[in-house]
Amino acid sequence: MNTPDRPVCVLGLGLIGGSLLRAVVDSGRPAWGWNRSTGAVDAARADGYDVTADIASALQRAAEEDALVVVAVPMPAVDTVLESVAAHAPHCVLTDVVSVKAEMAAAVERAGLAPRFVGGHPMAGTSASGWLAADVDLFRNAVWVVTVDDDTDPDAWIAVADLALSSGSVVVPARADDHDRAVARVSHLPHLLAEALAAVGAQGGELTLRLAAGSFRDGTRVAGTAPALVSAMCDANAPALIDALDEALAALNGARDALVADASTETLVSAGHAARLRYDEQLQWWEITDVVVGSPSWQNDLVDAGRRGGVIQRLPRRA
Amino acid sequence: MNTPDRPVCVLGLGLIGGSLLRAVVDSGRPAWGWNRSTGAVDAARADGYDVTADIASALQRAAEEDALVVVAVPMPAVDTVLESVAAHAPHCVLTDVVSVKAEMAAAVERAGLAPRFVGGHPMAGTSASGWLAADVDLFRNAVWVVTVDDDTDPDAWIAVADLALSSGSVVVPARADDHDRAVARVSHLPHLLAEALAAVGAQGGELTLRLAAGSFRDGTRVAGTAPALVSAMCDANAPALIDALDEALAALNGARDALVADASTETLVSAGHAARLRYDEQLQWWEITDVVVGSPSWQNDLVDAGRRGGVIQRLPRRA
Repeated sequence: MNTPDRPVCVLGLGLIGGSLLRAVVDSGRPAWGWNRSTGAVDAARADGYDVTADIASALQRAAEEDALVVVAVPMPAVDTVLESVAAHAPHCVLTDVVSVKAEMAAAVERAGLAPRFVGGHPMAGTSASGWLAADVDLFRNAVWVVTVDDDTDPDAWIAVADLALSSGSVVVPARADDHDRAVARVSHLPHLLAEALAAVGAQGGELTLRLAAGSFRDGTRVAGTAPALVSAMCDANAPALIDALDEALAALNGARDALVADASTETLVSAGHAARLRYDEQLQWWEITDVVVGSPSWQNDLVDAGRRGGVIQRLPRRA
Repeated sequence: MNTPDRPVCVLGLGLIGGSLLRAVVDSGRPAWGWNRSTGAVDAARADGYDVTADIASALQRAAEEDALVVVAVPMPAVDTVLESVAAHAPHCVLTDVVSVKAEMAAAVERAGLAPRFVGGHPMAGTSASGWLAADVDLFRNAVWVVTVDDDTDPDAWIAVADLALSSGSVVVPARADDHDRAVARVSHLPHLLAEALAAVGAQGGELTLRLAAGSFRDGTRVAGTAPALVSAMCDANAPALIDALDEALAALNGARDALVADASTETLVSAGHAARLRYDEQLQWWEITDVVVGSPSWQNDLVDAGRRGGVIQRLPRRA
């Protein structure tokens, strides 16, 4: 079966899973979904989608139709869902959209599903959550990490990259541990800083919050996300997050010392401004075009190109 | 002279001063400006505004026409500008739009200009700077702090509040030290956290920046501001900023300890989310309507109402 025609079975219909079901159906592929709570199931059915609260039936159909199975539940619910996958659809290509990749890969390994698994993480979201917040365009022009390791199966990798590309994203290949260290810096740390800023602001009382303008509003935006989702995401990446947090604490302690000694924030402010300029420059994509999936050393070639900031915008050739 | 007809002399034509000159002229009041660098003067003249690079002539005209004089230069340039005010227009009502209020009041005191001075701070801005970034609507629906202390002159206070209201803002009355503690929490601390986040993100290299999405983009937005402006603002409020920074460091160190001990960010994340909800609720204004400026204890009444989050939307009555 050509991957563009492979059906998709989405397990979990929150913001990310729900948006993915919408995007896949919108791209013309057959797709169905499962969700544990019937509220989202009823709402998705009312919107015309083929969904069920019975995970066994969703996965039996996936096995029959050789579907691509996507795990889209928070990390604490992953093991239970993978048990169902192992019971009903152990031979399907399997991916996920969970925000940590090493712990996800370990869970897949425990469930005996590693041979057909390729991890994924679309870098997209809003502070809203649940099916009602799902958006068919959530992944458009987003970056979608598709993991690569030494044992990754080329066909499974192509199938998962195709899902990301057909949802409107570009693909960034990365090792699971590289991914986790990166998102600790640019996703999980921003959440912790936003929570701390919100807390310090509110501690100042009503006048203080009345004076809050753009810098506070933007700096605390993601503190509006459901706290259980933020904690689940951060806690699952604790080791890498501790390292990133330590770097931030070192920078802030340095700024504190300089404020006390010289009433000067210049060192931190100069470094931060230069870093933000680097980020702005980095927004320009460069395209990985020369890797043939399945060729010798293709996994290392993809990992190296991803580390240098490259992205995949069209499905690569298959050796 | 009725305050609505009082002319306005704006000293400094960067983002804030330039936007103010535009807004005042747009409201139909006579206004002129001064800027030290001739680049902004030429640009403002080309846009049809009455501006000069000669501060003495701008201020002599202010004295002749009993103008409201607005200091709109960064804190490090304030003393020099106030010397000119003292030399040429010592009897005009004087205000400012500088981001710290206690140090500004001290500079005004040193210059012998305290009797006619009322401090101001519009909580508005963008990461851009300079005359070319100036925007006639910058202050629309913004919060504009107008300071009150035990010696504040009622007529000067009305004149400055009127400037803020006629520029489209609401007025929040506050003591200078209350203001400085508040903006340390909700303006200066957000800048330091944004700088630290940008630095830690960029330190991760190209893959890391490639994976940066909304939380990093919003969390580092103000790190794009010209570093000299950020440092000038933060450094002038060093004592209050150190206190706010210490609260943030305590929260982040607590989160680090909990991550190490229990792989849990729940305490910080719950507190931050609750705080962000308080901020969202606070966005609703309540109006201060019962204070008559110049009546007994009017200064304390305004300070108390401001501390409880009240705003002024219409020019108060004068006793």
